[in-house]
Amino acid sequence: MLYLVGLGLYDITDITVRGLNIVKSCNRVYLEAYTSILGVEKNKLEEYYERDVLLADRDLVEQGAEEILHNAETEDVALLVVGDPFGATTHTDFILRAAEKGIPYQVIHNASIMTAIGCCGLQLYNFGETVSIVFWTETWRPESYYDKIAANRDRGMHTLCLLDIKVKEQSIENLARGRKIYEPPRYMSVNQAAEQLLEIVSNRRSRGQTLAFTENTLCVGLARVAANDQKIISGTLSALTSANFGAPLHSLIVVGKVHPLEVDMLKLFAETKEDIETYAELIG
Amino acid sequence: MLYLVGLGLYDITDITVRGLNIVKSCNRVYLEAYTSILGVEKNKLEEYYERDVLLADRDLVEQGAEEILHNAETEDVALLVVGDPFGATTHTDFILRAAEKGIPYQVIHNASIMTAIGCCGLQLYNFGETVSIVFWTETWRPESYYDKIAANRDRGMHTLCLLDIKVKEQSIENLARGRKIYEPPRYMSVNQAAEQLLEIVSNRRSRGQTLAFTENTLCVGLARVAANDQKIISGTLSALTSANFGAPLHSLIVVGKVHPLEVDMLKLFAETKEDIETYAELIG
Repeated sequence: MLYLVGLGLYDITDITVRGLNIVKSCNRVYLEAYTSILGVEKNKLEEYYERDVLLADRDLVEQGAEEILHNAETEDVALLVVGDPFGATTHTDFILRAAEKGIPYQVIHNASIMTAIGCCGLQLYNFGETVSIVFWTETWRPESYYDKIAANRDRGMHTLCLLDIKVKEQSIENLARGRKIYEPPRYMSVNQAAEQLLEIVSNRRSRGQTLAFTENTLCVGLARVAANDQKIISGTLSALTSANFGAPLHSLIVVGKVHPLEVDMLKLFAETKEDIETYAELIG
Repeated sequence: MLYLVGLGLYDITDITVRGLNIVKSCNRVYLEAYTSILGVEKNKLEEYYERDVLLADRDLVEQGAEEILHNAETEDVALLVVGDPFGATTHTDFILRAAEKGIPYQVIHNASIMTAIGCCGLQLYNFGETVSIVFWTETWRPESYYDKIAANRDRGMHTLCLLDIKVKEQSIENLARGRKIYEPPRYMSVNQAAEQLLEIVSNRRSRGQTLAFTENTLCVGLARVAANDQKIISGTLSALTSANFGAPLHSLIVVGKVHPLEVDMLKLFAETKEDIETYAELIG
């Protein structure tokens, strides 16, 4: 049996009791280690699970599925995934390969950032399409997520922006030379995401376009959701470029039309409470 | 300290290890018992938690928050919520009351139906606004969710439809007479939801409106997600009126534009695989 086990968002004990029992009884345990991070070292996981934990990077999950699925018809194999196995990153291609081979699978669900962000007080019902904000490079500066946020705002909806993660990436030079040397991991901060959005706003403004949001639009930044030191700050897009969120992972919400109860909750996370009221009025 | 603890979706062991440790150490434990159901009896929960579990119906959570929050400045009180505390049902008003009283709170996240539906293979990124489909009565037959699904479909997005739950409802007569007699709980099935949608389609067609979806639109029904006997069936809206899903809870997805990987996953859940390909072509 193949088990896809969600680990939840942060702590070693965020796994479900059912998930833990399964992991402890599996023959082989892999940890998907390229799209998200858990606030726990690998050796701590091994101690807790009483099992060796094999790191599964992108190559292993995407090209080396054979290894993970080896003998899974008769043995129990677990692939551990931070969050929910079908949350921000999906593992459908992996499941399809298992299904092709006739390997039975079971999913152990857990918290995902895509619902946990509800803790800031914005109702999940009022969210439109989720977008991903990617790191810009010198030559590649996509703006497509702006238009998706704009389309959500047009309908009064909030937008969850998932922020880019670069783990085990090669530089162009190392890639060209076939050298398996990897860059240090990078995680986009709320500050960086807000700056990229402001630059797009500025580009659109200089082209005379109608703006779906501006530097004064109410936003929420979230860091390390579910950790004891999680940080949530609500404020204008402009204010979030300099707010201090600390260590990764970060997420950003561009707020749409707000309900009074949502405003009351956002006030709990405001650095300047006046802002929240002002912008809620503007939006409402 | 007030703890809002998500129980996950189905089994007693779907609680997280962190959540279980907290519940076992709390002075008082309440179970929010009006918006969702766990597949577990109350006495089983009490045995597992080694704690008395007090049922908190809508009255108690909405009007009787005082009781739940009593002494929570100094004692540990847990409110258990099926799914995630900020998933399909939010508890923001409850948190606001705690915040007003200066009671610290902590949220223990868990799986929510709003992300767990990813197990059908449709990507959460491709979902628009979530809608609720309510039971029609003789005199109240709202169609507003149709328009929201239509707006999502216009943008190629899938729509998660959460289906109505009626727990501890009074009949109009009993309500008028002030008799605290409650109707048996009712949970809308995929079949009922599909029938209501078809009736709206028929209404719109007879008025000559352009249809955002029809009886031939690809949909997915899900029942008891996360349970060992969970059931997922993909098929046309019309086919889902008669598919057999068994016991509650049910959810329905109206599919938008599909990616090839999504089609491959949906085929795993099709009763007639040909249908999926046909409609995927129509949609694509």
